[in-house]
Amino acid sequence: MHGFTRRQTVAAALAWLDAHISALNSETVPLRAAAGRVLAAKVTSHVDVPGFDRATMDGYALIAECTDGATPYNRMPFTVLGDAMAGSPFTRSVGRGEAVRIMTGAPVPAGCDAVLPAEFVEREAGSEDPASISRELPIAAIGAVSPGKNIGRVGEDIVAGTVVLEAGRALRPQDLGVMSSIGCETATVVRRPHVRLVITGNEVLPAGSRPKGFQITDANGPMLAALAERDGAIVDFPGPIRDDSDVILAALTSDADIIIVSGGSSVGVEDLSPMLVAKHGELAVHGIAMRPSSPTGMGTIGSRLVFLLPGNPVSALCAYDFFAGRAIRALGGRSKEWPYASVRAPLARKISSPIGRLDYARVRIEDGRVEPLAVSGASVLSSTTRADGFVIVGDDSEGFPAGADVDVWLYA
Amino acid sequence: MHGFTRRQTVAAALAWLDAHISALNSETVPLRAAAGRVLAAKVTSHVDVPGFDRATMDGYALIAECTDGATPYNRMPFTVLGDAMAGSPFTRSVGRGEAVRIMTGAPVPAGCDAVLPAEFVEREAGSEDPASISRELPIAAIGAVSPGKNIGRVGEDIVAGTVVLEAGRALRPQDLGVMSSIGCETATVVRRPHVRLVITGNEVLPAGSRPKGFQITDANGPMLAALAERDGAIVDFPGPIRDDSDVILAALTSDADIIIVSGGSSVGVEDLSPMLVAKHGELAVHGIAMRPSSPTGMGTIGSRLVFLLPGNPVSALCAYDFFAGRAIRALGGRSKEWPYASVRAPLARKISSPIGRLDYARVRIEDGRVEPLAVSGASVLSSTTRADGFVIVGDDSEGFPAGADVDVWLYA
Repeated sequence: MHGFTRRQTVAAALAWLDAHISALNSETVPLRAAAGRVLAAKVTSHVDVPGFDRATMDGYALIAECTDGATPYNRMPFTVLGDAMAGSPFTRSVGRGEAVRIMTGAPVPAGCDAVLPAEFVEREAGSEDPASISRELPIAAIGAVSPGKNIGRVGEDIVAGTVVLEAGRALRPQDLGVMSSIGCETATVVRRPHVRLVITGNEVLPAGSRPKGFQITDANGPMLAALAERDGAIVDFPGPIRDDSDVILAALTSDADIIIVSGGSSVGVEDLSPMLVAKHGELAVHGIAMRPSSPTGMGTIGSRLVFLLPGNPVSALCAYDFFAGRAIRALGGRSKEWPYASVRAPLARKISSPIGRLDYARVRIEDGRVEPLAVSGASVLSSTTRADGFVIVGDDSEGFPAGADVDVWLYA
Repeated sequence: MHGFTRRQTVAAALAWLDAHISALNSETVPLRAAAGRVLAAKVTSHVDVPGFDRATMDGYALIAECTDGATPYNRMPFTVLGDAMAGSPFTRSVGRGEAVRIMTGAPVPAGCDAVLPAEFVEREAGSEDPASISRELPIAAIGAVSPGKNIGRVGEDIVAGTVVLEAGRALRPQDLGVMSSIGCETATVVRRPHVRLVITGNEVLPAGSRPKGFQITDANGPMLAALAERDGAIVDFPGPIRDDSDVILAALTSDADIIIVSGGSSVGVEDLSPMLVAKHGELAVHGIAMRPSSPTGMGTIGSRLVFLLPGNPVSALCAYDFFAGRAIRALGGRSKEWPYASVRAPLARKISSPIGRLDYARVRIEDGRVEPLAVSGASVLSSTTRADGFVIVGDDSEGFPAGADVDVWLYA
């Protein structure tokens, strides 16, 4: 029950962490399951898209030159040879004075170099609606079209051989569309990190229990599971475990890429995890000059990264945000940076913080001003549900005066 | 094959839509599955958190007054009666001159009103480490503590009867933590909308096929599925179907909250869907003054909302962004607004657009400047993967000159 011998700076802790995180290997998943996943390799198209010249509008495929000078007062006659539908081409060649009725997406018949929109066409004899004009009927162009007009050329979207997406890309919905259009059945993506949550504490009841007596219900497990899943992890969380060396050691050596322990990370007599990490692996960081979360630890056991998060829920959230989440995102091939949007706004009241310590201050945004939440302790998790986000006061700063513009990282 | 008789404004189309969308009914899900879901009812705590006074620090529980004036040169003696551990209280009462070694989270013993941190304690006789001090041993306080210090009081986090989360809240990870801490086993959330995707076109091969001949591989299905899932929908997408009235009608009358059709939404001879919606329901909107996506339609069949999206992929994306996505989010209890972050930056080149038409312009952000992508057609889906986002030019605007600050909605 002595204090930490030396607290590392956040920068030093991050430097250690960044030297120990890199993207995992790849796996192949069906395209349908690839949204939001991170490409492990570039995607090159082996086909042209479109693979044929096609109409980009409903109308009449013809030779553009034959419409030169056409107006309602200078009608140019054409004979309609037939229809070209999407997936169902008109297979003969088209000559001067001939036209083929064509639908959007249909292949442009041989000989044609433009599609004349339907509104520039009238039936030659009588008042019948051009929509009902069909084969071998005479029509008149009443407007001109230039060569290439309303035709999507082979390779207009994608030329065979083009890299359509680079490695490292988090796949957007439209990326899946593009990959599908070039015939990809699967995506080669960075494997999702496996995270084992280890919530310790004899006083901790599993989520779903009603707190009673001197026992509390686990808040950190459900919170950390949701955070880790948000950041792309596959989470294994069998529920809280007792403060028992053998039980904790078994959990610390689970089959996972990352072990996140919450509770018992400090230097008290029941704080078994740091001792176990030091004994069975490397406890590289223990004690960080920040508030909350100063008892945070980091290390490795074998190839596993181990994060020792404080049991206090706000501390656990803050330490997750700074360290464990960063590792999960990096292992999954994502940006290490926070997945939070930020806004810049003036402080309603000052925030003070000593030099040498980084502070994670929960704030609300009210009427465009940033209001620090007055909270006494790291155990007040409801402060993070009342908060809109947080402001960071660096360890080289004594804080910010009222009115100063600060960056707020938004939880939602 | 005639044009749209009248194109509605985007505002009029949105007005119709907003009159037809409201949150679905609720369902109960396990807390573990509730991340990101939207609360259908407020959550009130029936318990105090914490439910007992507890130590917020490792140290010695005692009567604060008995430490008054303690310094290294004015040592105040205490007898250690025993230990209080988290979940394992010290059950006797503590009097003046007595102390109980206590761990963070442990109940504060009766009679005590403060926790003296370990660093303010020394063993009375000898140099032994205070960490190993245990029962019935004399210790000395070498610092003072004030009443209430280092104790988390009953209800400090949450008082029984408090509303901890309001209806309509999209649940954050820390919200799940708070709900768990008050004993919630489940969450009552807005039901996720069921969306049936109907991709039509005789030329369309299912995703996973290699495009060949005059056939193209479906890009819209995978894209729209990912978009709808991003916005909270449960998507049913059995694959593309043929341009056949009976087949399309069966799909349009599927068991779903929302039907999204892509392809055949225009006024060509193969554009069956608008006719079917008009015949079997209400085709309220057909043709919208925007680019791309002008052939978009909206309506209802029974209680289903039906969206007719153009087959061109960029049009389908744009029409999804404007209309179908808005409906999915609203039915799921979410904000109707775009889930895209926006940034404001100057245009590198002008964007022109006629009055009376809204434009959805794909742009890149390069060196802090907004570069419109030169793209010829709505079929060039790869333009949306090359783009960082889009700029909207309203129908009351002729566009923006080079150098003008514009809002860019970011895809990623």
